[in-house]
Amino acid sequence: MATFQTLPGFREFYPDALARRNHLFRLWRQTVHTFGFAEYDAPVLEPLELYKTKSGDEIEAQLFSFTDKGGREVALRPEMTPTVCRLVGEKASSLKRPIKWFSIAEFYRYERMQKGRGRCFFQFNADIFGEPGVEAETELIALLTQCLCSFGLTAEDFFVRLSDRNLWFYYLEALGLDDARARGILGAVDRYEKLGDDAFKGYVEQFGPLDPALKEKVLAFLQIKSIDVLEATLAPYSQEKLTARLSDWKKLLGNLDAMGLSRFVTVDLGVVRGLAYYTGFVFEAFDRKGELRALAGGGRYDNLVGKLGYAEMPAVGFAIGDMTFALLLEQRGLMPNFVQAPDVYAVIGGEKERLEAFADIHALRAAGFRVEYPMKEVAFGKQFKAASESGAKLALIYGGDELTKGVVKIRDLTDRSEHEVPRAQVLANVKNFFSGE
Amino acid sequence: MATFQTLPGFREFYPDALARRNHLFRLWRQTVHTFGFAEYDAPVLEPLELYKTKSGDEIEAQLFSFTDKGGREVALRPEMTPTVCRLVGEKASSLKRPIKWFSIAEFYRYERMQKGRGRCFFQFNADIFGEPGVEAETELIALLTQCLCSFGLTAEDFFVRLSDRNLWFYYLEALGLDDARARGILGAVDRYEKLGDDAFKGYVEQFGPLDPALKEKVLAFLQIKSIDVLEATLAPYSQEKLTARLSDWKKLLGNLDAMGLSRFVTVDLGVVRGLAYYTGFVFEAFDRKGELRALAGGGRYDNLVGKLGYAEMPAVGFAIGDMTFALLLEQRGLMPNFVQAPDVYAVIGGEKERLEAFADIHALRAAGFRVEYPMKEVAFGKQFKAASESGAKLALIYGGDELTKGVVKIRDLTDRSEHEVPRAQVLANVKNFFSGE
Repeated sequence: MATFQTLPGFREFYPDALARRNHLFRLWRQTVHTFGFAEYDAPVLEPLELYKTKSGDEIEAQLFSFTDKGGREVALRPEMTPTVCRLVGEKASSLKRPIKWFSIAEFYRYERMQKGRGRCFFQFNADIFGEPGVEAETELIALLTQCLCSFGLTAEDFFVRLSDRNLWFYYLEALGLDDARARGILGAVDRYEKLGDDAFKGYVEQFGPLDPALKEKVLAFLQIKSIDVLEATLAPYSQEKLTARLSDWKKLLGNLDAMGLSRFVTVDLGVVRGLAYYTGFVFEAFDRKGELRALAGGGRYDNLVGKLGYAEMPAVGFAIGDMTFALLLEQRGLMPNFVQAPDVYAVIGGEKERLEAFADIHALRAAGFRVEYPMKEVAFGKQFKAASESGAKLALIYGGDELTKGVVKIRDLTDRSEHEVPRAQVLANVKNFFSGE
Repeated sequence: MATFQTLPGFREFYPDALARRNHLFRLWRQTVHTFGFAEYDAPVLEPLELYKTKSGDEIEAQLFSFTDKGGREVALRPEMTPTVCRLVGEKASSLKRPIKWFSIAEFYRYERMQKGRGRCFFQFNADIFGEPGVEAETELIALLTQCLCSFGLTAEDFFVRLSDRNLWFYYLEALGLDDARARGILGAVDRYEKLGDDAFKGYVEQFGPLDPALKEKVLAFLQIKSIDVLEATLAPYSQEKLTARLSDWKKLLGNLDAMGLSRFVTVDLGVVRGLAYYTGFVFEAFDRKGELRALAGGGRYDNLVGKLGYAEMPAVGFAIGDMTFALLLEQRGLMPNFVQAPDVYAVIGGEKERLEAFADIHALRAAGFRVEYPMKEVAFGKQFKAASESGAKLALIYGGDELTKGVVKIRDLTDRSEHEVPRAQVLANVKNFFSGE
């Protein structure tokens, strides 16, 4: 009979792999807790229309979409953003602002299989709703940075590239370009790092050739890497929108500097993030060596809650994916080895002694100790070997001689010292041993 | 514009609801950790055939099944058992036995909508593979019991009904019934509690009327509630299989008694669990008042790993669902109220003071403290009100006067006492306060 395979692109988590995944989740949760975010979760299956409304009809090709038995067009969620907008939009009037929320969940995309890219992945999503000012960006970039630092990553390992889609639009407008042309150019900027000058070809086909002087300005703008150069570049333009954005930039960078985070953050107008729904600052975290895909990305999206049919609500958010992140930790030697060792191993003489041992085993577990024992009758020697190999600190020995005397022998497996304790004092003795550790 | 709705039967978890869900998951994980089980996880989408092989073609009607873009027949998982059998079967030769595994995951069934029954639910699944003896049942029933007791539930609140599908088959065989007739009768026994005598009608239609004397014996057998009555009932039959099962029963009950769990466990041959793949002991946990659906259910299924195409492997497992369980905790007043209070609230004078505060806020968070602050300029009075309402223990006051003196004022919000500390000592001071708590 043929055995069953996991579907292509899906992941199994055997205990070793799950321990590593849980390590990510645990530290992300610990970190985001200190920032005062509340955890939420949402359905894995959503109306297809939710994603089409956010991203356009063409998104369907990348989704696990189908018609359910009730005739509904549905899709496995490819991301959390539209869902969290719905949750917030539904209860906007009763939620205290700013709304600081996070989730850790799995997402699904029907993508062509590539090395290192599956059809499912986990994301840590954090969002702030209801705050229009750069204080929201400050809080989220600080959170993103700390989410990485809590694993031992430093400014040597990663950095956050900070850019601004609004600034781009205002600048292109100041250069005399209309909205459609500006969108075309942003598309080219988005692809410039991968394709170089070829990135502009799509633009050229669509709207005719770009004036060489304008193109020079675009290329110079996307290479801006400091606030000083940015300020100098904008100096000739007097548009109020540009001046206001520059002031936001200074405030945001000032905030991050006050938090001691300057060394992590780089001005980088080469980042525009392809997703058209961003409306202001955008940011992406990368490894310094530039070997990996983005570790995280996010930005402001003030229009999406309104677009889904709710009252307008300013919003900023980011997501960290689990796969690239785990890869970076492995590369930097920051992924611990997880050993699942019991605290106590019970060595059991025979069936009669087993019954005696069960009372203690259950009481020890109820008190929070991790206890293992052999399920079958096994020779003492083999049991001691198993106890040692298990990594347990203590062995409790339930032999016929001991039980006749009304005692249990306790062996410290680190120094092999032994002592006998009365049956009634086993739990107290084990507690004492571990509290003294 | 119309807003989007969650699909019928799917659940959103706003922070309050998620805190309650996380409470279940956290205590289940803590408990199963003490029993030495390792956590695994698996794909949410599986080949449809996996479930058909286990449960028959008719299962498809209850599944979220569809054809994916690659032409594969797939389904959202309705349960974990066949998947975990595949994981274990695939690596059977390299996994150390007994294999003690657990998972917490969401499952999906396309069922007719009923009150209190959705189309998705979470389950805690625990299984032991590789152990043919009742030691596996012992360990799992002890774990199940402790998973409930760790929430404060007692033997007054719930009990575990223990039965045995093999014993039923052997007994019906001893009564002269062939396998097909025995399966029909087990189906009737399964429905007897709900339908009473009507449960036998399906059987009657299929195989003709059941001999009244036989039916009496079946009815008497399904009402057995003690090992003594069971032993007396089986006494007239000398079949070796029956004797061996009786001996297993005594051993299992002896083990559970040795662990102090007798008060939770009831012999109850009225339970047979509809799922045809069980091959031995089966058990279900119920609330004592009998008001709720089963809290948990499980049993031995020694044939499933083999049926999926792998080497035969004995197995026992159970699952606890989150919905009935949460309902019981609510009814018994055992669901805590979760308040997300910060440790520290930073009260900030103005924009200049905000920058000064940011350094401390970030350092405090990096040290593990949960810190809130107002994102906007707000009058001091309102900030103090917000600090109190937040439930924070401490307020750190960054006023112009304080910062001129190079200090921060720390207010203990429980007794409103205040003292000033030099800027450089804020972190040390907060650490000190909370370690002294």
